[in-house]
Parts: sequence; structure tokens; C-alpha cells
Amino acid sequence: MTRTLGELAVFLGGELKGPADLTIEGIAPIDQATDREITFITQKRFARLLDQSRAAAFIVSSEYAELARPLIIVPHPYLAYAQVATLFALPVRRWPGISDLAFVGTGVTLGREVSIAPLAFIGDGAELGDRVTIMPGCVIGDEVKIGPDTLIYPNVSIRERCTVGARCIIHSGTVIGSDGFGFVPGEAGHVKIPQLGIAIIEDDVEIGANCTIDRGALGATRVGRGVKIDNLVHLAHNVEVGEHSFLVAQVGVSGSTKLGKGVILAGQVGVVGHIELGDGVRVGAQSGVNRSIPAGQTVSGYPARPQREWLQYASLLPKLPEIHRRLKQLEQQVSELTAQLNEEPKP
Amino acid sequence: MTRTLGELAVFLGGELKGPADLTIEGIAPIDQATDREITFITQKRFARLLDQSRAAAFIVSSEYAELARPLIIVPHPYLAYAQVATLFALPVRRWPGISDLAFVGTGVTLGREVSIAPLAFIGDGAELGDRVTIMPGCVIGDEVKIGPDTLIYPNVSIRERCTVGARCIIHSGTVIGSDGFGFVPGEAGHVKIPQLGIAIIEDDVEIGANCTIDRGALGATRVGRGVKIDNLVHLAHNVEVGEHSFLVAQVGVSGSTKLGKGVILAGQVGVVGHIELGDGVRVGAQSGVNRSIPAGQTVSGYPARPQREWLQYASLLPKLPEIHRRLKQLEQQVSELTAQLNEEPKP
Amino acid sequence: MTRTLGELAVFLGGELKGPADLTIEGIAPIDQATDREITFITQKRFARLLDQSRAAAFIVSSEYAELARPLIIVPHPYLAYAQVATLFALPVRRWPGISDLAFVGTGVTLGREVSIAPLAFIGDGAELGDRVTIMPGCVIGDEVKIGPDTLIYPNVSIRERCTVGARCIIHSGTVIGSDGFGFVPGEAGHVKIPQLGIAIIEDDVEIGANCTIDRGALGATRVGRGVKIDNLVHLAHNVEVGEHSFLVAQVGVSGSTKLGKGVILAGQVGVVGHIELGDGVRVGAQSGVNRSIPAGQTVSGYPARPQREWLQYASLLPKLPEIHRRLKQLEQQVSELTAQLNEEPKP
Repeated sequence: MTRTLGELAVFLGGELKGPADLTIEGIAPIDQATDREITFITQKRFARLLDQSRAAAFIVSSEYAELARPLIIVPHPYLAYAQVATLFALPVRRWPGISDLAFVGTGVTLGREVSIAPLAFIGDGAELGDRVTIMPGCVIGDEVKIGPDTLIYPNVSIRERCTVGARCIIHSGTVIGSDGFGFVPGEAGHVKIPQLGIAIIEDDVEIGANCTIDRGALGATRVGRGVKIDNLVHLAHNVEVGEHSFLVAQVGVSGSTKLGKGVILAGQVGVVGHIELGDGVRVGAQSGVNRSIPAGQTVSGYPARPQREWLQYASLLPKLPEIHRRLKQLEQQVSELTAQLNEEPKP
Repeated sequence: MTRTLGELAVFLGGELKGPADLTIEGIAPIDQATDREITFITQKRFARLLDQSRAAAFIVSSEYAELARPLIIVPHPYLAYAQVATLFALPVRRWPGISDLAFVGTGVTLGREVSIAPLAFIGDGAELGDRVTIMPGCVIGDEVKIGPDTLIYPNVSIRERCTVGARCIIHSGTVIGSDGFGFVPGEAGHVKIPQLGIAIIEDDVEIGANCTIDRGALGATRVGRGVKIDNLVHLAHNVEVGEHSFLVAQVGVSGSTKLGKGVILAGQVGVVGHIELGDGVRVGAQSGVNRSIPAGQTVSGYPARPQREWLQYASLLPKLPEIHRRLKQLEQQVSELTAQLNEEPKP
Repeated sequence: MTRTLGELAVFLGGELKGPADLTIEGIAPIDQATDREITFITQKRFARLLDQSRAAAFIVSSEYAELARPLIIVPHPYLAYAQVATLFALPVRRWPGISDLAFVGTGVTLGREVSIAPLAFIGDGAELGDRVTIMPGCVIGDEVKIGPDTLIYPNVSIRERCTVGARCIIHSGTVIGSDGFGFVPGEAGHVKIPQLGIAIIEDDVEIGANCTIDRGALGATRVGRGVKIDNLVHLAHNVEVGEHSFLVAQVGVSGSTKLGKGVILAGQVGVVGHIELGDGVRVGAQSGVNRSIPAGQTVSGYPARPQREWLQYASLLPKLPEIHRRLKQLEQQVSELTAQLNEEPKP
């Protein structure tokens, strides 16, 4: 699994400056790369580590074209890093066919080169597309459909009738299609509303570890094409997440809320139910969104407000004691002025 | 799995207005129902979708009794929806008896019609009541007791000696009886306090996916009868949750805190340890509760304050920049007034 | 599993006051202990329960040496409680050797007295040290290394090539080594950055239930020796946690952030990426840390500020409506004063 610098330049479609036959054994950060590894410069602050770096070669933008080191010059070094990393990644562990120690139900449809690991469970009537990989400990419910080239890491649970698209990656411990949290308050306690819907994960979605994505009460919870979800994220029943949205760790979205395309929710954000966040909305970390947000807006705080407004008042919070002191001083001054003014006329 | 409208009216104990022999194949929201499905009107805002709705029939309150559509009139349409949904829900997947691919320890007591799925683990001395269902990937520890009609979804872990009551539903990935987070700070590091207690889940409790409910340090962590818990909720050691309380997703409750009956914690709420929240306390989303709250109070914010107080100050937060400007202006004015007043006498 | 009071005194190295042959069957809180159990007094507020306590004996500091009850006097009763609790803890369930119902890959290295439970999965080339216990439902990836005496509870997933040190405890449902959340934004969607690194858990670490600890993008995510982590905690790729740090439930730490030694993050804290928290930093519950914090500082709030500053302004938040009223009143007064002053000269 070594490459020459020349091969990497061709692979990246970049300009080679240096020996084409230089052997590269891996990729590493600029301050950690050995003289057998390539590194990359994506930000100015890394450039100052350049002189001390032992790296064999550098992936850089044209800005650094004059460096007296072996270079591959590309328009987008960060993207090039991601691309080179795919070359040095170890292949995902697969099992040829169905392990003897897996359980596969009746009426299951399997594509070509499906890999079902030991101790995986596949329910009746499930459909797995070509090259689907199911890791150990996964429980794939009855009639679940999984598209081609999707990879399910260990101990994932997908409940009955949910669907996962093509080329998805679901990380360990995640639950898809658990019952939504729906109850009718009653005198003798909360009455459960059966959750008849499903969860639909579209193509090219990645979902982190230990997430929970509930099935719809009626109809579907839907995670749109290309959405990326970090760890420990909660999506309630009938939430809809628009294409290419980006949900950072520990986010929670309440029932029936709709996120537009390209929405970004930073870590630990909470969003109430039954609202809409328009396309491209961005929400700052730990914010709480309690009303619909128009497309394109960036908001922060709790309750979330436009980012600029939030920045202004957040910066004043630590000044509250000073503001309070100044207010008291003014009250004193005004009281004195009033007294003075009322005495004035006397003489 | 179809019903006639007449059958549904009888089942609901409601008043039928329309053809008793109308075939109903499912239940759906008013804007999605087909002409073979029944729908329901629970809020005024749905009523305006009525004219365009293709639904075959409507579950309504008496307010809508004059509608010229097939109706079932009931006092509580939302409850009726939950009830009808149970009729159209697919039965939960069960396995007759004990799967050959399950592991069942020694000295296990099994009730009638227990269902133990492939790849489930039942520890020594466990007791499962009548009609208990254990799904694939579950690990039921030694001497765990589970009451009749309880349903445990895939990949749940219940640690040794904990108990789960009757008619409970535990969703995938949830952990019951993990060690509480107890350490004695010491010079050579934190010394673990063995967690000798258990977790007790009483009857009719539902717990969402990927929750964590720690066992007591000594004695028990207790989740009272009828409590409903959403996904990714954390209950620390020796927490007690009173009957019919309602904990929304991503809530965390610290050690030894006691929640009364009918407490409602909205999403992402945190509660510190060793306090009490009285019966019927409600806490707004993302709030942090750091002291005991008397029964019946609604609180919000961090630190949590009575709801009205919080609403008042929260609405002023975005006005802080304006308040600050007005304060500066006043200072300027008062300074000028003072100068003016001190000049006055001169002439 | 009973002990005499004399044995306990010797075990604790404490001073015995009372009958050495008194039989003790367990340890319990002062208000729950039976007359066959020992209890302990760690705080003054427990001392007032002393008279009503039925406990057979008391572990106390010298302050309580004159109590007319059977005593063991020690310098640190809380630590003594933890030590006695280890005596009464039931032994952890183990399986001799490798269960027939486990899956063990090729080229696995096993130490002495390893215990691999039914339905556990051990990948190719994994190395398990002496007395390692792997509980049911665990998935230990290829080439994972686990140090001696480490205990892995049910349904834990450890991804390929990660390492866990000696004497660690990993609770149920936790995921170690899931892919970090790394993508390059692109026109056709987010491009995944392969996560080539690993996660390293050093010796004597305890990790709670349903946590997620991502592998490094390049290099390692590292949890230092003696660190204790509560439930549902998220550590992103390349996070480093210094020795003996203490992370309470539902904390999230973003990518490449470094925590020093002995850092304490209270519940639901969020920390942004690429910053450093110095040794001994403490962060209050639910706080959001968005910049580096020097060693020794305690911070709270969002954005996090020094604790004293935060306490001051947090206490003023509920007074905002009053501050606003007083501001308006001042404006009125100043306006009147101004009018009065401008009239004054007239006569």
C-alpha cells in the first residue's frame, strides 16, 4: 500500500514538483508526518510548521508553488487530502456471503456480494442490495430495505419496514425506526399512540454512532440524500431533514419539524417540534430554536435569535453587573440633581 | 386488516354519521389520507384542510357534527386516533418459544408464550413473565426479572438483578442497570465506589432508544409506574421518577434526585443531583435545574426560574444592546444636566 | 459473604470500638441500613439521622468517636465506604474460556483466564490480556488490543485497531473508534474524509454506557490514564483527555480539543474544537466553552466565563425586568429635570 509521488499527482490531477518516483507510505499532519509520508497545507497557520516538517512531500495550493520541497499543487488541498486518504485507508472488513453464525430469516432478498457477519440478524423479507455489508451484532428488522454499497457497522438496530438508501454508512449502536414518542394524556396515565410509520434514509447519508431516528407516527421520518449526522443525534417522529444538511453531535430535533436543504445544526442544538428551518439555515452550538427560521438565516442562543443580535447581547451579558452599578449610580445622581433643583429656587 | 366504518364507531363508542359498511383500510393525517383511509381532526388548524381532504371518513368532536362527510363523533378525537391506530398496527414480530440461536442460562424461569429471539442472551436465574418478548441482540443479565407482556426491542442491555415490570416497552440500544458514576477522589486517582444497587422499572413504563438508566450505588434507581421516557435520556444512580412522569429526549438527571408524580421534563433538560422536583413540576426545554422545585411549578432557563419570570427576562435579552445604549445616553444627559446646574448660579 | 466488624476494622486499618465478632451482612445508607448492615457518616447532614438509624455499626471519622454505637474510626469514611463496598459486591459474571456461542476470528492472542461470553465477537488478530472479560453482544474489531483485567460490559462495539489499556471498565452500548465526523464541503455534497486513525484508551479508565469515542482522522483520539467518563458522552476525533479527568454525563467535546490533567466537565457541557483546557480546569453544568481556558480556572455559562463573573451576571438575569423598569423611570425623571431646568431661567 505504498504509492509514488508521481502516482499521487496523477490521481489528484495536480501539478508535480519533485521526484516522481519518491515512495509515499501514508499521509499525516504536517507536524507528525515522517519522511515516508506526505502531508498537506490547508491553512496559513500550518504553513509556519513547514520548515521543521519531516514530511516527504506536500500537497499545497499554488500559493506555495515556490517551496523548495517535493510538492503536488492542486486547487483544493483539503479535498486532495480526503482523496489521498482513501488510498491509504485499510479496506473495510467483510465476510464472504452469509456467516454460519448469522441468522437470516425467510424470504430475504440478497444482492450480489452481500456480506453478513457472524452474529448479525436479518429479519424476514428484508432486501439487501449489492455489496451491502452488515457487521456483527446488527439487527435488521423484517422487510427492511437497504440499498447497494451501504455499510452498517456493529450493533446497529433497524426496525421493521424502514429503508436505507445506497452508499450509506451507519455507525455502531445507532437505532433507526424506534417508536416515536407519542402519547395521549389520560386520567389513568398516558395512552400510547401506535407508531405506524417508518423511517426513510435516502442515498449517500452517513449517520454517526448511537443516534436515534424514530419512525413516523403516520407516514415517514425522512433523512434526505447526502445528509451527514454526527454521534448521539436524536430525530423524533416525522422529522424531515433536507438534502446535504449537516447535524453535529448531540443535536435533538422534535417531532414533525422540517429542515430545509443544506441546514447546519452545530453541537447540542435543540429544535422544537412542528416548525420549519429554511434552506441553508445555520444554528450555533447549544442553541434552542423555538420558532421557524427563514432560509439563509444564521441564529444562536436560547431562544435562538439572528446571529448578529445574539452576538451583541451575549457580549453584554458579562457586563450586566457593571450596567447594574451604573444604573444605581445614575439613580443616585438624578436623585441629587432633583434635590438640588428643588432647592435652587429657594435662595 | 380492513374495518368498516360501523365497526370503528362501535369500537370507539362513538356516534356514526355515514355508511356503516364503508371499508376503511388505514388511518392517516388529514392532508395525506387516501379515499380508503380514515382521518381525524384534533385542532382547528387541521379543520381548514377539510375541504381538500380525500379521506374516506373523519373522527371528529361534536363541534364538527354537521359536516357533510362520513363521520364518527367522539368526545376526544386524539384519543380515538390512538385507539384506531392500534387496530391498524402490524403485530409485533415474535418467535415461538426460545430460538435455537439464543443463549439461555441455567435456572431461568419462563412464563407462558415467552418469545426469545435468535441472538438474544438470557442470564442465569432470570425470570421472564408470560408473553414477554426479547428481541435479537438483547442481553438480559443474571437474575433479572421481567414482568408479563413486556416487550424488549433489539440490542437492549439489562444488567444483573434489575427488574422491569409488566407491560413495559424498552426500545433498542437502551441500557438498564449500568454502574452509577461514583468515585472517591484520591491522590492516586479516583477510587471506584462499587455500585451495589439495582434499577427498578415499574409497570407500564416505556423507555426510548439508547437511554441509560444506572443502578443504585446502594439501594435502587426507580422509574415509577406509567412513566414515559424518550430517546437518549440519562438517569443517574438512585434517581427516583414518580408515576406518570414524562421525560423528553436527551434529558439528564443527576444522582439521587427525586422527581414527583406527573413531572414533565422537556427536551435536553438537565437536573442536578440530590434535589426534589415536586408533583406536577414542568421544566422548559434545555433548562438547567439546580435547586428543588415545589409541586406544581413550571420553570425554565439556566439556572431555572419560575416560567413567568424567565419569559420576562428572556424577552429582554435581545434588548440588552438597546438598554446599554439608553444607559449611556442617560449618563451623558445627567452629566450635562449636572454641568448646567452647576453653571446656573454663576450668572 | 458476611464479615465480622473486627475483620472490617482490620481491612480498613481503622480503630474498632465495639464487638469484634458482630456479624455484618452488607452496607447501606444511614436511613436504610438494617441491624445486620454497617453504614457510614460522611456529612454532617447525615449525622442527625444517627439516633433513628437501625444500623449495626458505623464507619465514622474521629469527630464521632464518642458515639455509643459500634464504630470503626477512619480518617476518610467516604473512602472506607467504597472499600467496604468492594467486599460486599457480587463477583462479576464470567465465562470460563471461550463460549461455544462466541465468534473468535483467526490469529487472536488470548491471555490467561480470558472470559469470552456467548454471542460475543472477537475479530482477527485481536489481543486480549490476562483476565479480560468480554460480555455478550460485544463486537471487538480486528487487531484491537485490550490490556489485562479489563472488563467490557454487554453490547459494546470497539472498532478495528483501537486499544484499551489495563484495568479499564467499559459500560454497555459504548462505541469506541467510530469514524470521526470529517467531510470536505463540495458542490455535489459533502466528501467524506476517511478516518485513518484510532482511539487509544489508556489504563484504569472507566467509560459509561452509550458513549461514543471517535477514532482520529489521522493519529489518535486519546483518553488518558485514570480518566472517568459518565454515560452518553461524546468525544470527537483527535480529542485528547488528560489523566484523571472527569467527564459527567452527556458532555460533548469537539474535534482536536485537548483537555489537560484533572479537568472536570460537569453534565451536558459542550466544548468546541481545536482549543485547550489547561490542567485542573472545571466547567459548570450545561456550559459551552468556545475558547481555550488557562489551567486551574473554573468557568460557567455560554459562552463560558470565569465562574465568579458568571455567577454575578447570572444572578442579575432575573432582575432584567426590574433594571428595565428603573431605566425607563430614570429616563422619565431626566426628561422632567431637563424640562424643569430649561424653564427655570425664564422667570
